[in-house]
Amino acid sequence: MGENISDTGEFGLIKRIHDIIDKNASQGRKAYLGIGDDCASFSPKEGYQLLVTCDSMVEGRHYLPRHISAYNLGRRAMAINISDIGAMGGVPVHSLVSLGLKGDMPTAYVEDLYMGFTDELNPLGASIIGGNITKSDNVFIDITLIGEVEEDIILKRSTAKAGDAIIVTGFPGESAAGLKLLLNSESADYTGKTTLINKYNRPAHRAREGRAVAMSGYANSMIDVSDGFLGDLGHVCEQSRVGAEIIKSNLPISSDLVKASAALNEDPYGMFLSESDDYELIIICRPENVGKIKKAILSVSDVTVTEVGRITDDKENICLLLPDGGRRDLTSVGWDHFRM
Amino acid sequence: MGENISDTGEFGLIKRIHDIIDKNASQGRKAYLGIGDDCASFSPKEGYQLLVTCDSMVEGRHYLPRHISAYNLGRRAMAINISDIGAMGGVPVHSLVSLGLKGDMPTAYVEDLYMGFTDELNPLGASIIGGNITKSDNVFIDITLIGEVEEDIILKRSTAKAGDAIIVTGFPGESAAGLKLLLNSESADYTGKTTLINKYNRPAHRAREGRAVAMSGYANSMIDVSDGFLGDLGHVCEQSRVGAEIIKSNLPISSDLVKASAALNEDPYGMFLSESDDYELIIICRPENVGKIKKAILSVSDVTVTEVGRITDDKENICLLLPDGGRRDLTSVGWDHFRM
Repeated sequence: MGENISDTGEFGLIKRIHDIIDKNASQGRKAYLGIGDDCASFSPKEGYQLLVTCDSMVEGRHYLPRHISAYNLGRRAMAINISDIGAMGGVPVHSLVSLGLKGDMPTAYVEDLYMGFTDELNPLGASIIGGNITKSDNVFIDITLIGEVEEDIILKRSTAKAGDAIIVTGFPGESAAGLKLLLNSESADYTGKTTLINKYNRPAHRAREGRAVAMSGYANSMIDVSDGFLGDLGHVCEQSRVGAEIIKSNLPISSDLVKASAALNEDPYGMFLSESDDYELIIICRPENVGKIKKAILSVSDVTVTEVGRITDDKENICLLLPDGGRRDLTSVGWDHFRM
Repeated sequence: MGENISDTGEFGLIKRIHDIIDKNASQGRKAYLGIGDDCASFSPKEGYQLLVTCDSMVEGRHYLPRHISAYNLGRRAMAINISDIGAMGGVPVHSLVSLGLKGDMPTAYVEDLYMGFTDELNPLGASIIGGNITKSDNVFIDITLIGEVEEDIILKRSTAKAGDAIIVTGFPGESAAGLKLLLNSESADYTGKTTLINKYNRPAHRAREGRAVAMSGYANSMIDVSDGFLGDLGHVCEQSRVGAEIIKSNLPISSDLVKASAALNEDPYGMFLSESDDYELIIICRPENVGKIKKAILSVSDVTVTEVGRITDDKENICLLLPDGGRRDLTSVGWDHFRM
């Protein structure tokens, strides 16, 4: 028997796919970014890029219907895609939605999903223009979102430089703690519990903040935190051929996360670094521009913005600087959906 | 208990979704066609439309792995999407592929799928620029395909006019017969069997033909036959607010389909009218332009092209004219995936 997908792993499989596409690529049109950034993009006219992203949510794998309403599920599924457009500095424009549904599902459930989709898109001026529904024993939601961005401000993963500062928005780890609290109904009940569960079930994308950062012109690179802080910073390091040093005492660990971690018997730093689904932004910029980036974000949002480390020339190595002056190599590659 | 999806049906559900999107539509950007044509489209610059289509294939529902190789499945899944772009007169440009996979699948299976995708895209100069892989107990392939077409030649479903001729390419019904032969291994073995099975497993899209028709400027409307001849002609009638008369003796029923229908104890006309998955084209044009359309298609392909009837002003009614002079009302709405 040959190798199977669990052996290859998600990121290994993506590389294999990339190789096939490269080898077999038509000599015709060339995409701008292709596989390996938050979005694919191409230029329908000079100076202007269309961004395209897609993301699937599978029932039982990415969500449990008893833990999330159809409306929130719709919002969550769309927010995740909006986050990818925002992480490149773009504005969402049009969406296509493919649903795999069971015949015995209530029609109202599907209508609530769509209410969730449109309530996320409307404030951004974006709309659903097409899609597909099909029968499936395993319910799934697959969203394609198309956005646009001016070519000269697009923010990619491959353009971080040694010496750059690393900034993060919000409080990564909270969403994963919310999920753990949701699944662990016996966990201690305390004030922050509902807040964290809502962070998981109804994540806030940072598309407005990402757009403001891109328009400021002060960032070198940007990515959204969907595979976990370390995993996504790792994507930037890999594609920019750089490394990173993270200062442990600078990491924005919220008091809600500290309380939840205690209740769950988890390390809050581990939750921050390795767990996924926050949809915050990691922004990379020259150290002298940190203040300007913060100001750009403040102009559209009151989200907390924290400088947490530096890009290094230690290729693809991410290192944690401890309060006692020690260093810890972080070799984790984030959340690999096929290995975990 | 409220209404469920089986009660509402696929087309009913699409209408409900359409209503929600209309009611909640952002007042911002407006898509050109939106839900209800082969593709969604929008205009990134004057005089020029981007077409976007997506289609899902679910294991056990749309294909059985024991009956189709991964390579052919990849070709088939991509051809179906190419067909939608071609049916509006467009040229495929970029694709995004979302896969839901099981961890114990061979990695080579996924690589073969991608070989199939790229072998369909390459001859058209199109490429895969992104996508997503996720774990799912029910394997699925969801493809988004982006194409482009000049605004002044785009062919829609809503522009057929009473008096127009109805043309069809190829031999609809053959693909469905192939599927029935595939599933019915005891069925009589005869020369045409493999041909029909291949029609199902590796359908030929008519994107080149569709493009030639659009560029000729002689067609009024076009659609691909994915929901069955009657179902798709019904979509044209509904959106153009017209009816149709089909001349039974003119329908291109192939001798392979006649033989297969006999072996399967099916009516070949029923297979032609109601069964799905042919990905041929229905082209609507002024009667005096039928010859010009045939010539345009002949310039790129040797596919058989047949005139089969007329568009009428009998709103949304499709009628079959029988050889004895009789008429039969055809109320079928084609293949409704949730009701069947």
